[in-house]
Amino acid sequence: MSSDRKVISYIAASLDGYIAGKNDDLGFLSIVEQEGQDYGYKEFMQTVDTIIIGRKTHDKVISMGFPYPGPDSDLDVYVITHQERPAEGRVTYYTGDLTALINELKSKPGKNIFCDGGAEIVNLLFGQKLIDEIVISVIPILLGDGIRLFKDGRPEQKLVLQSSTTFEKGLVQLHYIVA
Amino acid sequence: MSSDRKVISYIAASLDGYIAGKNDDLGFLSIVEQEGQDYGYKEFMQTVDTIIIGRKTHDKVISMGFPYPGPDSDLDVYVITHQERPAEGRVTYYTGDLTALINELKSKPGKNIFCDGGAEIVNLLFGQKLIDEIVISVIPILLGDGIRLFKDGRPEQKLVLQSSTTFEKGLVQLHYIVA
Repeated sequence: MSSDRKVISYIAASLDGYIAGKNDDLGFLSIVEQEGQDYGYKEFMQTVDTIIIGRKTHDKVISMGFPYPGPDSDLDVYVITHQERPAEGRVTYYTGDLTALINELKSKPGKNIFCDGGAEIVNLLFGQKLIDEIVISVIPILLGDGIRLFKDGRPEQKLVLQSSTTFEKGLVQLHYIVA
Repeated sequence: MSSDRKVISYIAASLDGYIAGKNDDLGFLSIVEQEGQDYGYKEFMQTVDTIIIGRKTHDKVISMGFPYPGPDSDLDVYVITHQERPAEGRVTYYTGDLTALINELKSKPGKNIFCDGGAEIVNLLFGQKLIDEIVISVIPILLGDGIRLFKDGRPEQKLVLQSSTTFEKGLVQLHYIVA
Protein backbone atom coordinates (compact mmCIF):
# COMPACT_ATOMS: atom_id res chain seq x y z
CA MET A 1 0.00 0.00 0.00
CA SER A 2 1.35 3.40 -0.97
CA SER A 3 1.31 5.89 1.87
CA ASP A 4 3.26 8.87 3.09
CA ARG A 5 3.39 7.24 6.51
CA LYS A 6 6.52 5.15 6.93
CA VAL A 7 7.09 2.36 9.41
CA ILE A 8 10.52 2.95 10.92
CA SER A 9 12.60 0.58 13.01
CA TYR A 10 14.78 2.84 15.18
CA ILE A 11 16.99 0.91 17.55
CA ALA A 12 20.44 0.59 19.11
CA ALA A 13 22.55 -2.56 18.74
CA SER A 14 26.06 -3.74 19.53
CA LEU A 15 28.42 -4.26 16.58
CA ASP A 16 27.75 -7.99 16.87
CA GLY A 17 24.03 -7.40 16.51
CA TYR A 18 22.54 -7.65 20.00
CA ILE A 19 19.94 -5.20 21.30
CA ALA A 20 20.40 -6.51 24.85
CA GLY A 21 22.92 -8.67 26.61
CA LYS A 22 22.18 -11.77 28.62
CA ASN A 23 19.19 -11.39 30.98
CA ASP A 24 17.92 -8.45 28.89
CA ASP A 25 20.82 -6.34 30.20
CA LEU A 26 20.87 -2.87 28.62
CA GLY A 27 23.92 -1.70 30.58
CA PHE A 28 26.05 -1.48 27.42
CA LEU A 29 24.07 1.57 26.30
CA SER A 30 25.78 3.57 29.06
CA ILE A 31 29.08 3.59 27.13
CA VAL A 32 27.61 6.12 24.70
CA GLU A 33 25.86 8.25 27.32
CA GLN A 34 26.87 11.87 27.00
CA GLU A 35 25.42 15.02 28.55
CA GLY A 36 23.16 16.76 26.04
CA GLN A 37 23.56 14.08 23.38
CA ASP A 38 20.38 12.18 22.51
CA TYR A 39 21.63 10.89 19.11
CA GLY A 40 18.73 12.53 17.31
CA TYR A 41 16.02 10.81 19.35
CA LYS A 42 13.95 13.93 20.11
CA GLU A 43 14.10 15.08 16.51
CA PHE A 44 13.12 11.61 15.34
CA MET A 45 10.19 11.49 17.77
CA GLN A 46 8.80 14.68 16.25
CA THR A 47 8.40 12.83 12.94
CA VAL A 48 6.20 10.09 14.42
CA ASP A 49 2.75 10.03 15.99
CA THR A 50 2.34 6.30 16.50
CA ILE A 51 4.40 3.70 18.31
CA ILE A 52 4.28 -0.07 17.85
CA ILE A 53 5.90 -1.99 20.68
CA GLY A 54 5.93 -5.57 21.89
CA ARG A 55 4.23 -6.34 25.18
CA LYS A 56 7.41 -7.57 26.89
CA THR A 57 9.41 -4.53 25.80
CA HIS A 58 6.57 -2.26 26.91
CA ASP A 59 6.56 -3.88 30.36
CA LYS A 60 10.36 -3.57 30.54
CA VAL A 61 10.39 0.11 29.58
CA ILE A 62 7.73 0.90 32.18
CA SER A 63 9.52 -1.16 34.84
CA MET A 64 12.66 0.90 34.20
CA GLY A 65 10.68 3.97 35.20
CA PHE A 66 10.81 5.68 31.83
CA PRO A 67 8.02 8.20 31.25
CA TYR A 68 6.88 6.12 28.30
CA PRO A 69 3.97 7.51 26.30
CA GLY A 70 1.03 6.73 28.54
CA PRO A 71 -2.72 7.30 28.26
CA ASP A 72 -2.21 11.08 28.40
CA SER A 73 0.43 11.29 25.65
CA ASP A 74 -0.43 12.66 22.23
CA LEU A 75 1.13 9.56 20.66
CA ASP A 76 -0.91 6.52 19.71
CA VAL A 77 0.69 3.42 21.20
CA TYR A 78 -0.04 -0.10 19.95
CA VAL A 79 1.18 -2.75 22.35
CA ILE A 80 1.37 -6.04 20.44
CA THR A 81 0.21 -8.82 22.73
CA HIS A 82 -1.46 -12.23 22.78
CA GLN A 83 -3.75 -11.23 25.63
CA GLU A 84 -6.79 -9.04 25.04
CA ARG A 85 -7.03 -6.04 27.30
CA PRO A 86 -9.12 -2.85 27.09
CA ALA A 87 -7.48 0.28 25.69
CA GLU A 88 -6.24 2.90 28.14
CA GLY A 89 -6.59 6.32 26.54
CA ARG A 90 -4.29 6.26 23.52
CA VAL A 91 -2.68 2.95 24.48
CA THR A 92 -4.25 0.08 22.52
CA TYR A 93 -3.48 -3.56 23.26
CA TYR A 94 -3.49 -5.21 19.84
CA THR A 95 -3.87 -8.95 19.37
CA GLY A 96 -4.61 -9.03 15.63
CA ASP A 97 -2.64 -9.34 12.43
CA LEU A 98 0.30 -6.95 11.97
CA THR A 99 -0.20 -6.44 8.23
CA ALA A 100 -3.82 -5.48 8.90
CA LEU A 101 -2.73 -3.01 11.58
CA ILE A 102 -0.11 -1.36 9.35
CA ASN A 103 -2.53 -1.20 6.40
CA GLU A 104 -5.15 0.41 8.60
CA LEU A 105 -2.69 2.96 9.98
CA LYS A 106 -1.35 3.77 6.52
CA SER A 107 -4.87 4.26 5.14
CA LYS A 108 -5.28 7.24 7.46
CA PRO A 109 -3.28 10.47 7.32
CA GLY A 110 -0.62 10.91 9.96
CA LYS A 111 3.06 11.07 10.78
CA ASN A 112 5.44 8.12 10.68
CA ILE A 113 5.05 4.95 12.72
CA PHE A 114 7.86 4.06 15.12
CA CYS A 115 8.59 0.39 15.73
CA ASP A 116 10.19 0.50 19.17
CA GLY A 117 11.01 -3.22 19.47
CA GLY A 118 11.64 -5.64 20.86
CA ALA A 119 13.37 -8.08 18.59
CA GLU A 120 10.29 -10.29 18.34
CA ILE A 121 8.14 -7.49 16.87
CA VAL A 122 10.96 -6.17 14.67
CA ASN A 123 11.39 -9.64 13.17
CA LEU A 124 7.66 -10.14 12.68
CA LEU A 125 7.51 -6.80 10.85
CA PHE A 126 10.59 -7.52 8.70
CA GLY A 127 9.24 -11.02 8.07
CA GLN A 128 6.10 -9.49 6.55
CA LYS A 129 8.09 -6.74 4.76
CA LEU A 130 6.27 -4.07 6.75
CA ILE A 131 9.32 -1.93 7.63
CA ASP A 132 10.01 1.03 5.31
CA GLU A 133 13.10 2.48 6.99
CA ILE A 134 15.64 1.32 9.49
CA VAL A 135 17.84 3.42 11.74
CA ILE A 136 20.46 1.44 13.66
CA SER A 137 22.71 3.07 16.22
CA VAL A 138 25.77 0.82 16.34
CA ILE A 139 27.24 0.81 19.85
CA PRO A 140 31.03 0.22 19.95
CA ILE A 141 31.04 -3.08 21.80
CA LEU A 142 30.92 -6.81 21.13
CA LEU A 143 28.43 -8.17 23.65
CA GLY A 144 29.25 -11.74 22.72
CA ASP A 145 25.79 -13.02 23.60
CA GLY A 146 22.26 -11.82 24.25
CA ILE A 147 19.12 -10.89 22.35
CA ARG A 148 19.75 -10.60 18.62
CA LEU A 149 18.14 -7.81 16.64
CA PHE A 150 17.84 -9.97 13.53
CA LYS A 151 16.69 -13.59 13.62
CA ASP A 152 17.24 -16.07 10.81
CA GLY A 153 14.48 -16.80 8.34
CA ARG A 154 13.44 -13.36 7.10
CA PRO A 155 13.08 -12.44 3.42
CA GLU A 156 16.00 -10.79 1.63
CA GLN A 157 15.52 -7.02 1.33
CA LYS A 158 17.79 -4.55 -0.42
CA LEU A 159 18.53 -1.29 1.35
CA VAL A 160 19.44 2.20 0.24
CA LEU A 161 21.81 4.01 2.58
CA GLN A 162 20.31 7.37 3.45
CA SER A 163 22.97 8.58 5.89
CA SER A 164 25.73 7.46 8.19
CA THR A 165 26.52 9.68 11.17
CA THR A 166 29.47 9.26 13.50
CA PHE A 167 29.36 10.57 17.06
CA GLU A 168 32.07 11.41 19.56
CA LYS A 169 31.49 8.38 21.79
CA GLY A 170 31.99 6.03 18.84
CA LEU A 171 28.33 5.45 18.07
CA VAL A 172 27.62 5.21 14.32
CA GLN A 173 24.02 5.77 13.28
CA LEU A 174 23.09 4.10 10.00
CA HIS A 175 19.87 5.11 8.27
CA TYR A 176 18.55 2.96 5.41
CA ILE A 177 15.43 2.98 3.27
CA VAL A 178 14.12 -0.49 2.45
CA ALA A 179 14.10 -0.75 -1.36
CA MET B 1 51.52 -10.32 24.66
CA SER B 2 52.57 -6.84 23.58
CA SER B 3 53.51 -6.62 19.93
CA ASP B 4 53.43 -4.13 17.10
CA ARG B 5 51.84 -6.80 14.95
CA LYS B 6 48.05 -6.62 15.10
CA VAL B 7 45.58 -9.35 14.24
CA ILE B 8 42.91 -7.75 12.09
CA SER B 9 39.54 -9.17 11.11
CA TYR B 10 38.69 -7.50 7.79
CA ILE B 11 35.42 -8.67 6.32
CA ALA B 12 32.19 -7.70 4.59
CA ALA B 13 28.78 -8.41 6.08
CA SER B 14 25.15 -7.58 5.39
CA LEU B 15 23.43 -5.15 7.78
CA ASP B 16 21.81 -8.15 9.47
CA GLY B 17 25.21 -9.69 10.11
CA TYR B 18 25.69 -12.40 7.49
CA ILE B 19 28.95 -12.89 5.60
CA ALA B 20 27.25 -15.22 3.15
CA GLY B 21 23.69 -16.09 2.28
CA LYS B 22 22.21 -19.56 2.19
CA ASN B 23 24.45 -22.15 0.49
CA ASP B 24 27.47 -19.89 1.05
CA ASP B 25 26.13 -17.50 -1.60
CA LEU B 26 28.31 -14.39 -1.95
CA GLY B 27 26.20 -12.85 -4.72
CA PHE B 28 25.13 -9.96 -2.46
CA LEU B 29 28.64 -8.50 -2.68
CA SER B 30 27.94 -7.57 -6.29
CA ILE B 31 25.61 -4.74 -5.21
CA VAL B 32 28.62 -2.70 -4.10
CA GLU B 33 30.83 -3.57 -7.10
CA GLN B 34 32.10 -0.43 -8.78
CA GLU B 35 34.79 0.09 -11.41
CA GLY B 36 38.04 1.18 -9.75
CA GLN B 37 36.63 0.94 -6.20
CA ASP B 38 38.25 -1.70 -3.99
CA TYR B 39 37.08 -0.18 -0.67
CA GLY B 40 40.64 0.14 0.58
CA TYR B 41 41.52 -3.53 0.12
CA LYS B 42 44.83 -3.03 -1.72
CA GLU B 43 45.96 -0.40 0.78
CA PHE B 44 44.99 -2.70 3.65
CA MET B 45 46.87 -5.63 2.11
CA GLN B 46 50.05 -3.56 2.09
CA THR B 47 49.87 -3.40 5.89
CA VAL B 48 49.85 -7.19 6.33
CA ASP B 49 52.34 -9.96 5.59
CA THR B 50 50.45 -12.91 7.04
CA ILE B 51 47.01 -14.35 6.42
CA ILE B 52 45.05 -16.67 8.67
CA ILE B 53 42.19 -18.42 6.94
CA GLY B 54 39.93 -21.36 7.64
CA ARG B 55 40.32 -24.44 5.48
CA LYS B 56 36.77 -24.28 4.10
CA THR B 57 37.06 -20.61 3.19
CA HIS B 58 40.46 -21.25 1.61
CA ASP B 59 38.97 -24.01 -0.55
CA LYS B 60 36.06 -21.73 -1.48
CA VAL B 61 38.29 -18.80 -2.47
CA ILE B 62 40.46 -21.05 -4.61
CA SER B 63 37.40 -22.72 -6.20
CA MET B 64 36.16 -19.25 -7.17
CA GLY B 65 39.32 -18.84 -9.21
CA PHE B 66 40.77 -15.98 -7.18
CA PRO B 67 44.55 -15.61 -7.47
CA TYR B 68 44.74 -16.19 -3.71
CA PRO B 69 48.23 -15.95 -2.20
CA GLY B 70 49.78 -19.22 -3.24
CA PRO B 71 53.16 -20.85 -2.64
CA ASP B 72 54.88 -18.14 -4.70
CA SER B 73 53.32 -15.16 -2.92
CA ASP B 74 55.36 -13.07 -0.49
CA LEU B 75 52.61 -13.47 2.08
CA ASP B 76 52.68 -16.18 4.72
CA VAL B 77 49.37 -18.05 4.70
CA TYR B 78 48.18 -20.19 7.61
CA VAL B 79 45.28 -22.42 6.65
CA ILE B 80 43.59 -23.55 9.86
CA THR B 81 42.54 -27.17 9.46
CA HIS B 82 41.96 -30.41 11.36
CA GLN B 83 43.89 -32.44 8.82
CA GLU B 84 47.70 -32.42 8.76
CA ARG B 85 49.21 -31.68 5.38
CA PRO B 86 52.72 -30.65 4.35
CA ALA B 87 53.43 -26.97 3.75
CA GLU B 88 53.49 -25.71 0.17
CA GLY B 89 55.96 -22.87 -0.09
CA ARG B 90 54.61 -20.13 2.15
CA VAL B 91 51.28 -21.90 2.68
CA THR B 92 51.24 -23.71 6.03
CA TYR B 93 48.42 -26.06 7.05
CA TYR B 94 48.08 -25.47 10.78
CA THR B 95 46.33 -27.94 13.09
CA GLY B 96 47.52 -26.58 16.44
CA ASP B 97 46.27 -24.11 19.03
CA LEU B 98 45.35 -20.64 17.74
CA THR B 99 46.65 -18.75 20.78
CA ALA B 100 50.02 -20.49 20.35
CA LEU B 101 50.09 -19.55 16.66
CA ILE B 102 49.29 -15.88 17.32
CA ASN B 103 51.82 -15.72 20.17
CA GLU B 104 54.48 -17.20 17.93
CA LEU B 105 53.71 -14.79 15.09
CA LYS B 106 53.69 -11.82 17.45
CA SER B 107 57.01 -12.82 18.97
CA LYS B 108 58.65 -12.18 15.59
CA PRO B 109 58.90 -8.86 13.81
CA GLY B 110 56.54 -8.35 10.89
CA LYS B 111 53.55 -6.55 9.49
CA ASN B 112 49.97 -7.09 10.61
CA ILE B 113 48.14 -10.41 10.48
CA PHE B 114 44.98 -10.58 8.41
CA CYS B 115 42.21 -12.89 9.54
CA ASP B 116 40.41 -13.58 6.27
CA GLY B 117 37.59 -15.71 7.70
CA GLY B 118 35.46 -17.68 7.58
CA ALA B 119 33.07 -17.19 10.44
CA GLU B 120 34.34 -20.28 12.26
CA ILE B 121 37.92 -18.93 12.50
CA VAL B 122 36.75 -15.38 13.26
CA ASN B 123 34.68 -16.70 16.17
CA LEU B 124 37.49 -18.91 17.48
CA LEU B 125 39.82 -15.88 17.43
CA PHE B 126 37.29 -13.56 19.11
CA GLY B 127 36.50 -16.34 21.56
CA GLN B 128 40.13 -16.36 22.66
CA LYS B 129 40.40 -12.54 22.51
CA LEU B 130 43.05 -12.77 19.80
CA ILE B 131 41.65 -10.06 17.50
CA ASP B 132 43.15 -6.57 17.91
CA GLU B 133 41.23 -4.67 15.27
CA ILE B 134 38.10 -5.23 13.25
CA VAL B 135 37.13 -3.69 9.93
CA ILE B 136 33.58 -4.46 8.82
CA SER B 137 32.26 -3.35 5.45
CA VAL B 138 28.50 -3.16 5.94
CA ILE B 139 26.72 -4.05 2.69
CA PRO B 140 23.32 -2.35 2.26
CA ILE B 141 21.12 -5.43 2.30
CA LEU B 142 19.23 -7.64 4.72
CA LEU B 143 20.04 -11.18 3.64
CA GLY B 144 17.50 -12.64 6.04
CA ASP B 145 19.42 -15.88 6.49
CA GLY B 146 22.85 -17.41 5.94
CA ILE B 147 26.22 -17.64 7.63
CA ARG B 148 26.49 -15.28 10.58
CA LEU B 149 29.71 -13.35 11.18
CA PHE B 150 29.24 -13.45 14.96
CA LYS B 151 28.09 -16.54 16.84
CA ASP B 152 26.72 -16.50 20.38
CA GLY B 153 28.96 -17.35 23.30
CA ARG B 154 31.94 -15.04 22.84
CA PRO B 155 33.37 -12.84 25.60
CA GLU B 156 32.24 -9.21 25.86
CA GLN B 157 34.82 -6.84 24.34
CA LYS B 158 34.69 -3.06 24.27
CA LEU B 159 35.64 -1.35 21.01
CA VAL B 160 37.06 2.04 20.11
CA LEU B 161 35.79 3.43 16.82
CA GLN B 162 38.75 4.39 14.68
CA SER B 163 36.89 5.50 11.56
CA SER B 164 33.65 5.19 9.67
CA THR B 165 33.78 5.67 5.92
CA THR B 166 30.77 5.92 3.64
CA PHE B 167 31.01 4.98 -0.04
CA GLU B 168 28.87 5.85 -3.05
CA LYS B 169 27.25 2.43 -3.38
CA GLY B 170 26.01 2.58 0.22
CA LEU B 171 28.77 0.51 1.77
CA VAL B 172 29.82 1.78 5.22
CA GLN B 173 33.22 0.62 6.42
CA LEU B 174 33.57 0.59 10.21
CA HIS B 175 37.03 0.28 11.73
CA TYR B 176 37.36 -0.51 15.45
CA ILE B 177 40.22 -1.22 17.79
CA VAL B 178 39.47 -3.86 20.42
CA ALA B 179 39.98 -2.19 23.81
